[in-house]
Amino acid sequence: MQPIQAVAWSDDGDGVRILDQRLLPEREVYRVLRSVDEVCEAINTLAVRGAPAIGIVAAMALALSVPAAAGENAAVTLADADGRLRGTRPTAVNLARALDRMMKVGLPLRRDVDRMRRTLRDEATRILEEDRAMCRRIGEHGASLIADGARVLTHCNTGALATGGIGTALAAVYVAVESGKRVEVYADETRPLLQGSRLTAWELQRAGIPVTVLADGAAASLLRDGDVDLCLVGADRIATNGDVANKVGTYPLAIAACRHSVPFYVAAPTSTFDPSTARGDDILIEQRSPDELRRLLGAQTAPVNVPVYNPAFDVTPAELISAIVSDRGVHRPPYDFSEPA
Amino acid sequence: MQPIQAVAWSDDGDGVRILDQRLLPEREVYRVLRSVDEVCEAINTLAVRGAPAIGIVAAMALALSVPAAAGENAAVTLADADGRLRGTRPTAVNLARALDRMMKVGLPLRRDVDRMRRTLRDEATRILEEDRAMCRRIGEHGASLIADGARVLTHCNTGALATGGIGTALAAVYVAVESGKRVEVYADETRPLLQGSRLTAWELQRAGIPVTVLADGAAASLLRDGDVDLCLVGADRIATNGDVANKVGTYPLAIAACRHSVPFYVAAPTSTFDPSTARGDDILIEQRSPDELRRLLGAQTAPVNVPVYNPAFDVTPAELISAIVSDRGVHRPPYDFSEPA
Repeated sequence: MQPIQAVAWSDDGDGVRILDQRLLPEREVYRVLRSVDEVCEAINTLAVRGAPAIGIVAAMALALSVPAAAGENAAVTLADADGRLRGTRPTAVNLARALDRMMKVGLPLRRDVDRMRRTLRDEATRILEEDRAMCRRIGEHGASLIADGARVLTHCNTGALATGGIGTALAAVYVAVESGKRVEVYADETRPLLQGSRLTAWELQRAGIPVTVLADGAAASLLRDGDVDLCLVGADRIATNGDVANKVGTYPLAIAACRHSVPFYVAAPTSTFDPSTARGDDILIEQRSPDELRRLLGAQTAPVNVPVYNPAFDVTPAELISAIVSDRGVHRPPYDFSEPA
Repeated sequence: MQPIQAVAWSDDGDGVRILDQRLLPEREVYRVLRSVDEVCEAINTLAVRGAPAIGIVAAMALALSVPAAAGENAAVTLADADGRLRGTRPTAVNLARALDRMMKVGLPLRRDVDRMRRTLRDEATRILEEDRAMCRRIGEHGASLIADGARVLTHCNTGALATGGIGTALAAVYVAVESGKRVEVYADETRPLLQGSRLTAWELQRAGIPVTVLADGAAASLLRDGDVDLCLVGADRIATNGDVANKVGTYPLAIAACRHSVPFYVAAPTSTFDPSTARGDDILIEQRSPDELRRLLGAQTAPVNVPVYNPAFDVTPAELISAIVSDRGVHRPPYDFSEPA
């Protein structure tokens, strides 16, 4: 079975088709979004998530934002849509980058609405296709690290659900399986938002790849028992010295893997390398809402007003990382990512 | 404020008063259980939990099981109650030990029902009082390790809710605060059953001790940031070499604490030392229900049929433990717990 396609043009070409991730793992429901408002709402409510996927749907929404009859108003309409989409995630780099690209090709054509519409659509399609190709290249490089029969431990969701293609870190698993290797995956549940148990487990199962879920705190036992051949995680930002910011819970996994001499790999697009960040200590870690630990899927899991420490990410120092995989290849320490990609 | 009292005789003396832990942290509801059936149900549904607390309520239930008019049937009634209580948790050592004690003093008095009833009640009260005293001694020894102003990171629930007294590991915090020290606690959420966020956070808050909740995967970040002065956890079993089996998630915490040179303490009753277990590797780790990871408080958190790795405990090797606190004192490595307690 193929990995799912989380984001695509609708069959009639007039909408963005997304897999509604709020309903997973219970139900697989696709929705067609036909307006900027619908796309903004889908991003805000996490119906669509994952930095690359968000950038893509925003670009597609922008391509749909200018009606054929817009006339003189084309530029204003476009700028308004851009502002609303950009506002959904003010700090998301992929989102801003995708919208920048769209505005750059679209705005100069303000006097030719037809051409503007065609150009915007082509550019959004290109962003989607480039993401697909990037996923595949990461997958191909990453698959070289996965032997036949390997048992892979992963954290959070870095799969097809987060991108326009087959994922980032998880792409390596998909390509390895595609090439005939047998691969088993252990998926950390990934508290607080459960991306591992809700999303990674679901998409791997649907693609016919054996997957087992575990609590984040149980991963060290699994490593101790010798049941893991390699760890493979994604990255939100990579400093020039190879320190990696990723979903909280990545760092303790890397420490435990190191103690048990299990290779620990990071896989991410080149766009994740940040030449302006020298070391992990320079990365500001955002605190997320305390309610993520106080309530879960409607139920109360902690006293209503208890203080919560809820960092979105943690930093894994380069010394704990065996190699970093990108769409450009497999990078080994000592790292030097100070050159812009 | 005082720590709560999770288990006690009811005011009229004819029942067992428990704090219903199923309703925490939302509601603080006390229930009076007046029959063996009600106590069995409370144990089975986790209204009462924690190995010491379960042993105590079972002993109290046995004391209530023989009616004044039992006559010739006293022995049969008692044995029947013993069997039903024992069956609620076939592998719980504290439970079996408490019931053994009760049967030993009760059965020989089968021909004098009045005396049997008085003796059973006295023995159950003694079991409760001994547990209280044991908690206090652990607390006093443990408090010597907690400096004024200390920030303590803990895992699971080892407090008043698990015992007849002020807890085991958490007793050290209560005694330290009682003696005028300022102590702050960080409570790991403790997946899958959330004993940290649901119970530890609740009982500390209620006792007026500052507590902050965090996801299990965030503890390593907190240690890295230098925000923890010591880790303090309980134990389910301690091998003669000092290896400790405790709630899953304890081992990765110990690895992270070691990496950041933060002292890692274990506190538990002497009854937890197991002279028949030489090393942690000899401890069989029970797998719990997969549904603990698939469903949470009624909501689906993973695909319904996904395989789950869900060990109840993990093993922390003695080399990662700075000291073990028991009701007898503070034990430092190298450990030798081969003598029976």
